[in-house]
Amino acid sequence: MNLYEELTEYGHKDIYPYHMPGHKRKEQSFLPKKTALIDLTEVQGTDNLHAPTGILKDAQEYCAEVTGADHSYFLINGSTAGVISAIFAAVSEGGKLIIVRNAHKSAYHGMALRNAIPAYIYPETEKKWGFCKAVTPDEIGKAMEENPDAEAVFIVSPTYEGCLCKVEEIAKIAHLRGIPLIVDEAHGAHLPYLGGKYSACRAGADIVIQSTHKTLPAPTQTALLHVNGSLIKKDRIERYLRVFQSSSPSYPLMAGIDGAVRLMAARGGELLETLENNYAGLVSKINNELKYISAYPFCKGINDAGKLLLSASDGNNIFMTGTELSEILRNEYGAETEMSSERSVLAMFTVSDDWEAYKRLFDALTKIDETLRKKAENGCTGTVITEYDDIPRPKIALPPGSAWKTESEEIPVEESVGRISEEIVGLYPPGTPLLAMGEIIEREHVELIKRYIGEKLEVSGIKDGMISVLKGEGLSKPI
Amino acid sequence: MNLYEELTEYGHKDIYPYHMPGHKRKEQSFLPKKTALIDLTEVQGTDNLHAPTGILKDAQEYCAEVTGADHSYFLINGSTAGVISAIFAAVSEGGKLIIVRNAHKSAYHGMALRNAIPAYIYPETEKKWGFCKAVTPDEIGKAMEENPDAEAVFIVSPTYEGCLCKVEEIAKIAHLRGIPLIVDEAHGAHLPYLGGKYSACRAGADIVIQSTHKTLPAPTQTALLHVNGSLIKKDRIERYLRVFQSSSPSYPLMAGIDGAVRLMAARGGELLETLENNYAGLVSKINNELKYISAYPFCKGINDAGKLLLSASDGNNIFMTGTELSEILRNEYGAETEMSSERSVLAMFTVSDDWEAYKRLFDALTKIDETLRKKAENGCTGTVITEYDDIPRPKIALPPGSAWKTESEEIPVEESVGRISEEIVGLYPPGTPLLAMGEIIEREHVELIKRYIGEKLEVSGIKDGMISVLKGEGLSKPI
Repeated sequence: MNLYEELTEYGHKDIYPYHMPGHKRKEQSFLPKKTALIDLTEVQGTDNLHAPTGILKDAQEYCAEVTGADHSYFLINGSTAGVISAIFAAVSEGGKLIIVRNAHKSAYHGMALRNAIPAYIYPETEKKWGFCKAVTPDEIGKAMEENPDAEAVFIVSPTYEGCLCKVEEIAKIAHLRGIPLIVDEAHGAHLPYLGGKYSACRAGADIVIQSTHKTLPAPTQTALLHVNGSLIKKDRIERYLRVFQSSSPSYPLMAGIDGAVRLMAARGGELLETLENNYAGLVSKINNELKYISAYPFCKGINDAGKLLLSASDGNNIFMTGTELSEILRNEYGAETEMSSERSVLAMFTVSDDWEAYKRLFDALTKIDETLRKKAENGCTGTVITEYDDIPRPKIALPPGSAWKTESEEIPVEESVGRISEEIVGLYPPGTPLLAMGEIIEREHVELIKRYIGEKLEVSGIKDGMISVLKGEGLSKPI
Repeated sequence: MNLYEELTEYGHKDIYPYHMPGHKRKEQSFLPKKTALIDLTEVQGTDNLHAPTGILKDAQEYCAEVTGADHSYFLINGSTAGVISAIFAAVSEGGKLIIVRNAHKSAYHGMALRNAIPAYIYPETEKKWGFCKAVTPDEIGKAMEENPDAEAVFIVSPTYEGCLCKVEEIAKIAHLRGIPLIVDEAHGAHLPYLGGKYSACRAGADIVIQSTHKTLPAPTQTALLHVNGSLIKKDRIERYLRVFQSSSPSYPLMAGIDGAVRLMAARGGELLETLENNYAGLVSKINNELKYISAYPFCKGINDAGKLLLSASDGNNIFMTGTELSEILRNEYGAETEMSSERSVLAMFTVSDDWEAYKRLFDALTKIDETLRKKAENGCTGTVITEYDDIPRPKIALPPGSAWKTESEEIPVEESVGRISEEIVGLYPPGTPLLAMGEIIEREHVELIKRYIGEKLEVSGIKDGMISVLKGEGLSKPI
């Protein structure tokens, strides 16, 4: 029996709940019957996520078995809780962490809470599409040489756009110096079911965090954390998972994690093969049959089948922004996408998409391509694509934790050159910060922020043209 | 339209999700159809919990209006996230917090992360039943005199057993010195709908945290945080709620909060009146009609209708432990209760219980009473009830945050006298710690732990008779 079935069986027992939750397992107009029935709490027979000995222990052990982990933990506060807990378990108070700049904001939050000192690696920018590429083993090696006092390495693989890191090589580099590798595999919860060493667990990572809701058919806010090897103390991870997660974890969420894992264990290979075929077929059709719409090429092992990056471009010129393309897809073709940026739109496919979904998107793109063709025939040449620069690397005045302990004020972005940012500023998603907490704002950051605002992109950390900066004289010197 | 309806409407639109979550709103064997349909993410029309401008902003503003708060926030990581965020917003790094000892473990975790210095208030123990009573305004006043450097006051009301504090008086005392009052009202999410000043929001508290899943018909893991007045900076609370909660919050959970709030706003008065009548009736019948079973008396305004504390006792002698009573209720009568302790069992009633639930419990208790009567006739006299002592107050060697930064080891409980506890040790629930992190273990603590283990009670922080203590010489001096 899977967890959902076990909970449903419990729910149907003639045991009356003189305990929480307050709905007493009764359907509400805003809480469907089947969900209410399994929305239980820690009573005899339902186990306890924070000290499992029964059905939750079994479910987590099964998950570890099929993902190749030593220990797996169900997360009901998203990868957010996993990332922060991982940083707390791997880095001591005030310790140094080698971390990719394209880390999720939860990693920045974790560093701030832990008062950690970040040593950032800025992976290269893809020159034409403008996204952050996967960090390389060479970049990791260099950072480790420059930071012999680092206590752990933190990478993101796959990236938001689906680029895969060479995790096995990177793990070896970290382990040569005896420090753990944390892999934020939020976008790769499906990787263990591809076989081989695609997944970070099987490639030797010490802590792996996966968002089950992103690429598996599990409910939003669910995730997994896996621990491998002996560099990470199991009881430390368990302590921080207790700290950063509700003491009343949701059983429907846990049942969703277990269900998705079991589905993939049973049929993942076949489902992922279909996904890859459909996805590769779509990419190929777009690039072969459409002229004014391009898809970022798929190359197995280098990037992930599922993340489809689109651009209204013929390869040389661009005919509309990503935001404009996504608006047309939404408003005219009922296709909501994951993210849009200056040049591109990201669409996501998972094992839950059938061929109709691919076809629907291709048909929409075909029609948009046709419109663009007509425009081109009428003399619209678009804009020549220039290469993206690497994103500007701000100087650090204070580590994130110290920045959050300093008084701040809000000022107009234009007046902020030379001041220190209090919060993360950047496009979210994907979220590579232009500025993180405690970093010195330079002219080029202000120019970029203004450009993004002009292009109607959502810049996190900016509200009505205002930015939070630290108060105090003499702070704005790099450390 | 409530949030559930708005999300359902969105779910039925012909907009295909080329985005997360991975189930693409499709029913799974482990994810019911109606829940999958509204398990959305942040796209156009569904708003964003961490920067709300649309339907979530409206829902939270409606909640603030009906609960009498200045600002309300939906919590999807339980009261846990709210309590920690409140401590971060109200207390500076390393600052002092006046806090009741019967605070939830999340408050201890929050103090550890914030490196806060606790000034504990030990509320009196109810001598006969053994639970922790509500903290009094006098106790707060005394603590404030002794700790003029405290930055905030943290109380729990209602307590786990339903005792209500005089929040209005306590708020006035805190405000006289210009510091904020945080009320962990996890067990009182229904109080705003009783009218008057029963709820901490209307009694002047600065931050109020409520578990909607405990006393309202909302799903497990849902809660609310309310902010009032100007002592707490709104943007600080919002920052920490972003930090301690998933960046992919669950829409079904949010819909559950909104639905419960709207239900109570519409019908709360009537539903709570029925609850109180049924509850008071049951308490009265138990105390009048049963001889060997007692219920803690209900006194409106002093304790809360809903928490039913039972004891297998005639008032002088006790005939079985709470654990034994709860086991009989579970195994013989299909009645699962919230908690059992040495002397008592706690059963919980909410607005979702109908009269049948009260009757079922009363019938079970009547039969148990009859069994006990027969035993008494056969000469079983039970055990004379002695008065509980106040719980021993450990000396603090290190603040919680420092304890967590010190190396530790596991040793047998019997050998731990004079050492410093690394974790919280106590009965959970309710959870008043016998020892918190960084406290010196004395002989009487060890004796109590051994007594609890002997009575088969669950002692958190103890595993197979082992306790985690700090390493290092010379630490065991009180600060």
